[in-house]
Amino acid sequence: MENGGYGEVLEDANEHCPGPQSESAGKSDTCQGCPNQKVCATAPKGPDPDLILIAERMASVKHKILVLSGKGGVGKSTFSAQLSFALAAMDYEVGLLDIDICGPSIPKMLGLEGQGIHKSNLGWSPIYADSNLGVISIGSLIPDPDQAVIWRGGKKTDIIKKFLKEVYWGELDFLVVDTPPGTSDEQISIVQCLKEDGIDGAIIVTTPQEVSLIDVRKGVTFCKTAGVKVLGVVENMSRLYQRLTDANFVRSSETGELTDVTKWALQYISEQAPELLGLMACSQVFDNSGGGASRMCQEMGIPFLGKVPLDPQLCKAAEQGKSCFEDQNCLVSAPALKSIIENLLPKIVGEHGA
Amino acid sequence: MENGGYGEVLEDANEHCPGPQSESAGKSDTCQGCPNQKVCATAPKGPDPDLILIAERMASVKHKILVLSGKGGVGKSTFSAQLSFALAAMDYEVGLLDIDICGPSIPKMLGLEGQGIHKSNLGWSPIYADSNLGVISIGSLIPDPDQAVIWRGGKKTDIIKKFLKEVYWGELDFLVVDTPPGTSDEQISIVQCLKEDGIDGAIIVTTPQEVSLIDVRKGVTFCKTAGVKVLGVVENMSRLYQRLTDANFVRSSETGELTDVTKWALQYISEQAPELLGLMACSQVFDNSGGGASRMCQEMGIPFLGKVPLDPQLCKAAEQGKSCFEDQNCLVSAPALKSIIENLLPKIVGEHGA
Repeated sequence: MENGGYGEVLEDANEHCPGPQSESAGKSDTCQGCPNQKVCATAPKGPDPDLILIAERMASVKHKILVLSGKGGVGKSTFSAQLSFALAAMDYEVGLLDIDICGPSIPKMLGLEGQGIHKSNLGWSPIYADSNLGVISIGSLIPDPDQAVIWRGGKKTDIIKKFLKEVYWGELDFLVVDTPPGTSDEQISIVQCLKEDGIDGAIIVTTPQEVSLIDVRKGVTFCKTAGVKVLGVVENMSRLYQRLTDANFVRSSETGELTDVTKWALQYISEQAPELLGLMACSQVFDNSGGGASRMCQEMGIPFLGKVPLDPQLCKAAEQGKSCFEDQNCLVSAPALKSIIENLLPKIVGEHGA
Repeated sequence: MENGGYGEVLEDANEHCPGPQSESAGKSDTCQGCPNQKVCATAPKGPDPDLILIAERMASVKHKILVLSGKGGVGKSTFSAQLSFALAAMDYEVGLLDIDICGPSIPKMLGLEGQGIHKSNLGWSPIYADSNLGVISIGSLIPDPDQAVIWRGGKKTDIIKKFLKEVYWGELDFLVVDTPPGTSDEQISIVQCLKEDGIDGAIIVTTPQEVSLIDVRKGVTFCKTAGVKVLGVVENMSRLYQRLTDANFVRSSETGELTDVTKWALQYISEQAPELLGLMACSQVFDNSGGGASRMCQEMGIPFLGKVPLDPQLCKAAEQGKSCFEDQNCLVSAPALKSIIENLLPKIVGEHGA
């Protein structure tokens, strides 16, 4: 108990690491999340029968990609959604599995709110955003969107397994798995359940500031511990680009009071400096004085996939469940995302397609 | 199993709700997070001895406030940090407890990185950001900041209890608890552990767009289910304000290629339209066409505490572990935060102070 229990905390951390060396890996009936493990010593031992069922479902899935982030709110779900739209537009068969149990954003971002999951003879049917883009999320299982899912880890593991066992995806080129922030039950469970079947790798999404990069480093450590390849890091919200004519202009008084002078300012610009009207203003939203994700990737020896600006038009497309690639307004984000996906694909499918 | 298992999922959700009606409340030795509850039926029954130890520690804490968010990355930790700075500047005795186990940002945001927690005869000592502002976070227990804490829910519950049992806060006017995103182990545990001692209420932080508000509604439902008062909702990152002279200017070609023309643009503005130089440009970052948090609060009958703009200077202050109230650059965020705290305080301490 010296040093406030340093050693103890780290030992405990290792005790629950995923991967083949983990004591609890693959034994669904042991109490993996139990604060008092000895209580559960009576749990049945032996291989997890669920893993066999999962392997059967995954036999028709060519590539499995995890989308991770350390920190929340870095645009991970937006990236997962747009990656899925992009792959589907390239005529791949795509499945998008949302395992963010407490805060599922995927149904909204794919324009599937209010649609429920149905069951057929073959299993649970994904909801199709397009003929080749199927989606599964707990958000589609809960009729009331205000309903909180107040579950401890074990229940979350249960539903993730259920998704993997019960959903009939059919033949898929890609299964994209969108995870919640962190390195806890959801991430441990998905890796334990899919590892035997082969995970192509993980994409880690971040914003440029250090407070987010701290968590990305933890995500990279998670992948190394779990034996999952890091396909690369995407830096989101690097800068904000906005047409000057879309901005509001305000004047700040000495006491900090703000007055909106947009109408006057736009008139003044048209008369005095009309060449500004065609420009975009670009703001550095998050401090990246530490070099951002690109430098971190260099230091950690992992691929940097590229930067996506914070584009209010992309936020809008995501809110409306639309692909940014079909939205003419996503002037700066769509090309950035496209280039990232072009960087990413050869790492997964090789040079000759899926 | 009709309808893809709707009913089943919702029943399961209620099974693990916190609050006095919960079967597992207050029994630390039962396996609350276990996927297979019957395995743990041998666990000892009876009142949780930890709750007695926690009550002893909490006897010297006047007010306990939870800071929640549904979605991650909405600026919850930044708000918790700045709230704590503000209360400490008002000469209150403040404790800040970070229970985000997988992604602790609080040490960095308080400028306490690299400092460890020490143990005295009285218990674990918080790290002091100021003589009247003590901080506890798992980030201060892990010497290597890249180390991932790969724990399932039960281990997270364990460390939260340990913080509550072991930390010697001394006399506190306020204990601010910063939580991770979601409504799972961390939130259930903190409510179960502190409820008997009285929680003044929860502040829910959000951004204006619908994809975040969906999760806030879940947070409000969590509070109602758990019997925790919602003190109010803070809308963060409502707009981005930036001095025009701090922006970069870019020109977009027809193919989407961007050319930086900042130098030319600033020169052109100085010559042709110098009155623009004193203005700020304000961008709507996140779509709030649905009315944002303010309308949601009206609809749900809960207090709306105010809006904080997305201020790059506030992000910078948070990165540097500084109070925005002592940073002259936080022109637009500091007054907004101050007004929110002025709205909030009477709800907690009444009109006559703590």
